[in-house]
Amino acid sequence: MKAAVLVAPRTIEIQEHPMPEPGPGEVRLKLAAVGVCGSDVHYYEEGRIGTAVVQYPTLLGHEPSGVVDSVGQGVKLQPGTRVAVEPAAPCGRCEHCLAGRRNICPDVRFLGTPPIPGIYAQYHVLPEHCCIPIPDNMSLTEAALMEPLGVGLHAVQLARLALGETIAIFGSGPIGLCTLLAARLTGVTRILMTDLVPERLDLAKRLGADAVLNADEGDAVEWIRSETGGRGVDVTFEAAGVQETVTHACLAARPGGRAMLIGIPSEDELTMPMHECRRGELLIQHVRRSNGEVAPCLPLVASGRIDVKALATHFFPLERTTDAFDLVHNYADGVVRAVIRPNEDLASR
Amino acid sequence: MKAAVLVAPRTIEIQEHPMPEPGPGEVRLKLAAVGVCGSDVHYYEEGRIGTAVVQYPTLLGHEPSGVVDSVGQGVKLQPGTRVAVEPAAPCGRCEHCLAGRRNICPDVRFLGTPPIPGIYAQYHVLPEHCCIPIPDNMSLTEAALMEPLGVGLHAVQLARLALGETIAIFGSGPIGLCTLLAARLTGVTRILMTDLVPERLDLAKRLGADAVLNADEGDAVEWIRSETGGRGVDVTFEAAGVQETVTHACLAARPGGRAMLIGIPSEDELTMPMHECRRGELLIQHVRRSNGEVAPCLPLVASGRIDVKALATHFFPLERTTDAFDLVHNYADGVVRAVIRPNEDLASR
Amino acid sequence: MKAAVLVAPRTIEIQEHPMPEPGPGEVRLKLAAVGVCGSDVHYYEEGRIGTAVVQYPTLLGHEPSGVVDSVGQGVKLQPGTRVAVEPAAPCGRCEHCLAGRRNICPDVRFLGTPPIPGIYAQYHVLPEHCCIPIPDNMSLTEAALMEPLGVGLHAVQLARLALGETIAIFGSGPIGLCTLLAARLTGVTRILMTDLVPERLDLAKRLGADAVLNADEGDAVEWIRSETGGRGVDVTFEAAGVQETVTHACLAARPGGRAMLIGIPSEDELTMPMHECRRGELLIQHVRRSNGEVAPCLPLVASGRIDVKALATHFFPLERTTDAFDLVHNYADGVVRAVIRPNEDLASR
Amino acid sequence: MKAAVLVAPRTIEIQEHPMPEPGPGEVRLKLAAVGVCGSDVHYYEEGRIGTAVVQYPTLLGHEPSGVVDSVGQGVKLQPGTRVAVEPAAPCGRCEHCLAGRRNICPDVRFLGTPPIPGIYAQYHVLPEHCCIPIPDNMSLTEAALMEPLGVGLHAVQLARLALGETIAIFGSGPIGLCTLLAARLTGVTRILMTDLVPERLDLAKRLGADAVLNADEGDAVEWIRSETGGRGVDVTFEAAGVQETVTHACLAARPGGRAMLIGIPSEDELTMPMHECRRGELLIQHVRRSNGEVAPCLPLVASGRIDVKALATHFFPLERTTDAFDLVHNYADGVVRAVIRPNEDLASR
Repeated sequence: MKAAVLVAPRTIEIQEHPMPEPGPGEVRLKLAAVGVCGSDVHYYEEGRIGTAVVQYPTLLGHEPSGVVDSVGQGVKLQPGTRVAVEPAAPCGRCEHCLAGRRNICPDVRFLGTPPIPGIYAQYHVLPEHCCIPIPDNMSLTEAALMEPLGVGLHAVQLARLALGETIAIFGSGPIGLCTLLAARLTGVTRILMTDLVPERLDLAKRLGADAVLNADEGDAVEWIRSETGGRGVDVTFEAAGVQETVTHACLAARPGGRAMLIGIPSEDELTMPMHECRRGELLIQHVRRSNGEVAPCLPLVASGRIDVKALATHFFPLERTTDAFDLVHNYADGVVRAVIRPNEDLASR
Repeated sequence: MKAAVLVAPRTIEIQEHPMPEPGPGEVRLKLAAVGVCGSDVHYYEEGRIGTAVVQYPTLLGHEPSGVVDSVGQGVKLQPGTRVAVEPAAPCGRCEHCLAGRRNICPDVRFLGTPPIPGIYAQYHVLPEHCCIPIPDNMSLTEAALMEPLGVGLHAVQLARLALGETIAIFGSGPIGLCTLLAARLTGVTRILMTDLVPERLDLAKRLGADAVLNADEGDAVEWIRSETGGRGVDVTFEAAGVQETVTHACLAARPGGRAMLIGIPSEDELTMPMHECRRGELLIQHVRRSNGEVAPCLPLVASGRIDVKALATHFFPLERTTDAFDLVHNYADGVVRAVIRPNEDLASR
Repeated sequence: MKAAVLVAPRTIEIQEHPMPEPGPGEVRLKLAAVGVCGSDVHYYEEGRIGTAVVQYPTLLGHEPSGVVDSVGQGVKLQPGTRVAVEPAAPCGRCEHCLAGRRNICPDVRFLGTPPIPGIYAQYHVLPEHCCIPIPDNMSLTEAALMEPLGVGLHAVQLARLALGETIAIFGSGPIGLCTLLAARLTGVTRILMTDLVPERLDLAKRLGADAVLNADEGDAVEWIRSETGGRGVDVTFEAAGVQETVTHACLAARPGGRAMLIGIPSEDELTMPMHECRRGELLIQHVRRSNGEVAPCLPLVASGRIDVKALATHFFPLERTTDAFDLVHNYADGVVRAVIRPNEDLASR
Repeated sequence: MKAAVLVAPRTIEIQEHPMPEPGPGEVRLKLAAVGVCGSDVHYYEEGRIGTAVVQYPTLLGHEPSGVVDSVGQGVKLQPGTRVAVEPAAPCGRCEHCLAGRRNICPDVRFLGTPPIPGIYAQYHVLPEHCCIPIPDNMSLTEAALMEPLGVGLHAVQLARLALGETIAIFGSGPIGLCTLLAARLTGVTRILMTDLVPERLDLAKRLGADAVLNADEGDAVEWIRSETGGRGVDVTFEAAGVQETVTHACLAARPGGRAMLIGIPSEDELTMPMHECRRGELLIQHVRRSNGEVAPCLPLVASGRIDVKALATHFFPLERTTDAFDLVHNYADGVVRAVIRPNEDLASR
């Protein structure tokens, strides 16, 4: 089988790998779609996120969908089953797992995060419990979007939004848009969004943002204040991972508000505007991935409450993985989520 | 009457002012003790805290106690009553006041914060509702410590400490020590404290810290990790207002922990270590003053649960206000709280 | 002016009263619509709710709308302004008011609750702050429904519903339906409702319930379990105030679920099924009126998110107040909210 | 080995059973002490708690301590290790386990609760993960008290007590006293307790209750109101499981307060005083067992923060299990916790 291997910074090689065999409790997946996440691009470009450093060669990728191809001993899933994938396998025994916060398990194994190999390949072996069968009316492309949607859902759940609250989302990339899609289902009555890419802002409006601002064309904080009668929004979501949006997320929240920081920056440190944060007694909640929230996304999409289709804007065969990374890295051609299709015969499923 | 007037940056003049007269609902206080707060020193040294800029001349000071001297129409308090002072008068009508978060009222009038004059004088007129009679077994010096104690209490209440949690307090100045005094009454089972001033660390130990570190002599984060089996503490309290302690407050919290930021920095911006914060899904709660928490401090002190006496380390007559400020600014002579006594005849009450 | 006076149990007399004059800070309202609440019927039929006992003669009524007719000194509202009414005037000074829970103020003055007179009359004098101007696109009939809608909103806010939760509402009278209207705006994904009156269940479906059960025709708990795969719903709302629905609200919640008890029973005591409650570690939240939640209802209705029009099913002139009470008491003719129109010339506004 | 078998209602027989052998991952415990819990007495006297019905013959008992006697394959615990026991083995996979609320797992296996056999025997085989080694300075008698202490701890954690709150505990039996021991470590400033047994009230005072009332000699609600200036306490804990104390727990809480219901009644249903509950917007939290809270009790006891020794008032050999049950059932001789010692040679360890 073929695999897109990261062999050095910014260098992906298509290699022939032996077909992996599922052990007991494991499933071999024939991959249909794998989303190219911003964190993949961090590893590709910078070789690390904080202290998580790539050891070459490696496979990236943690947003797959696929079809069960072959199963190991004791597995109940049937070959042929179409599945979404929960990329996190927490330890299940630490205090955080036992307390129900499995996403901060220090021993979590997470697909495509050093040192756990990822999934940019034609086949991959996974524990059965990571494979979640999808409803009939969901495509495998949609299934590959459940992981980023789970991140948006998680951020929204952590924010405990109340009926009548207003929010601003900084960054209209895939995570910002997934946050929008989840937040729209709650009782918030106004959603403001910013970005620098016109196509993303158009999509934000189409998916339910009440108003959008191209941050190249105006001061986001002033705009949010003017849209809220000077008050600021109840909750801000930062989904770009740059200094400016983190600052804005702090400044645009009302007194007593909350800022949810989801974006992954390239820098190790970013600043907070201390006096304004303190005056408003701001609560800043850092957000990490999702807490097993791939599964609860499925019925939200299958029931039509959330439509993720528009997020997948570009498709590439495995051989062109480098092109996909470059496209995403350059925010080119209005890309939102680029999707690798390792097996073209599954493209229409 | 005499007043210690800030006439220019770092310049206090003792001036003769006309005796103020209480209007309806007001009380004239003969001041017994006024604590010199770190925020006073910010205004004295830097002329501002963030966008709150001093207009000269002004009076600083917001930690007073005194004796009711004369009362206006409709006041029930009797002359001669010894009182502590709640320095905040929130508007009572805005959404934040109505929601019970009166400390973030944008229209709060707070003693000694521009443009509201403070209380470094022999007499001051206040609304009756700001004056809280103190129990017989509380001295007026103790009463002047109720405002910083209220800040510590507020930070502790916001942190919602659970039985068995562990905490670290960065900074053993008055606010750090008041946080310690409040936290000691909760169910936390281990309190670690740091500072750079040996006398403050000694006092921290005396007041109930389980272990202390002079941060000049070791890495605070490593120390906290080693004291907690590598896990970090459940909650960190930052009470120094400098970059290093803010960083440490983020790094020393366990995954899923909370960092309470109380200190007021000189800088407008400080940094957060983004990757570690995100990995631990850290919650950062900025803390502003107290939410009407002078009053609930009184029974905690009167009942002997909290002993604040040791915090007041140095006493000055009004004429030597400058000396007090310099002492505090230089962390000299083991100072914790320096207290101005505008009326020496009240010193022993 | 005319007033509908409760002179004895089940006896309302239309009397001529002197026109009331607004004092300083007060407003005289010319009443357009006054809803007949179930609690009014309790007072009418039983002379009391718990220890709140009617002293005859009295006026009932606390769900009014009207037009400002004349104003006292210092009032800013202009005559002619159309307003909704917040019937609660909490003291503003007790610990509960200061903590932001103004609906449990022990000294609250609440329109039409002994000993405070109500509003079944042509004119009524109120403090200005109780009168909330309504948007142009809201009718005065809708405005009279803001108080029960506020109760539904309050119950929903207290329940802190999370995205993806499921709920059941027991009782499809005005309060149950208002709870539905508020809950529909949150992230709940399934709303089940019960009642005994077919017209109310039809309305529930029309207003957004996902499924309804006539509790005469099936066991509500079994039905809810079967609708939820045996699990029960996350949150139950009891809005009927009878033993059966309280029991069902306890039994139909999932383990770890919440039961919100809103209904006002005739009985002083009702039972809980203790073993099931304990096994599921059920949280039962009693709900009292609303916490200043008339005002936040206005934009939800004005923006079209909530449509309350269908709740007002029957209209009566003041002279026929007794007929309105009898209709409501007997759940006759598919009544949901019966509305008194004390001034017919305002009927179409 | 000998076992005390419940062969019929109120009939325990001492039988000779074959020595059980530990399988893989299991441990055979030589039991040192087994507390006689009120729920054991329910099963003994009434044959059931709600729908959990005894199938005779069975073994009761879920509060053991012991010494590791022999181990199965893959077990790391060494023979000779002294251990406390976590009697609950939740499934670990259901939504409640994953959410960190393992005590409401519908598939939990709980020692001595039908159909899982209990531990009134000389030896018992348990999964290794249920056996928690105890510190050197803790006796095996103390270790057998960790389960009820965990229940008290759990109730206190669920109540989220804030600094300065006041509480009342209804019932001074083992669970009430364990609640007291845990609550004393939090920031509550006043603990009021009631019971009918003078010895228990004496013990309550000795263990830290601020005031106690023999409910035979006064109205508990009036007493609590008079002790709190008419306000009521912030939180009530019901630990007797009878109608009167449940009613009192509702009535003695302040407006906006919380009532924690821990006691297990004989009746299937008990009443709530609806009007008072609604007026105060009371939150009632049913409490079930503990959420893995045996383990966190150990350091609280080992460090001397909690002293449970006084709770174990009576000791019986296995042969006299019936006498122990009768003593507990009759609240005779000032009994708090009666303890069975199945192996007398371990009595002093």
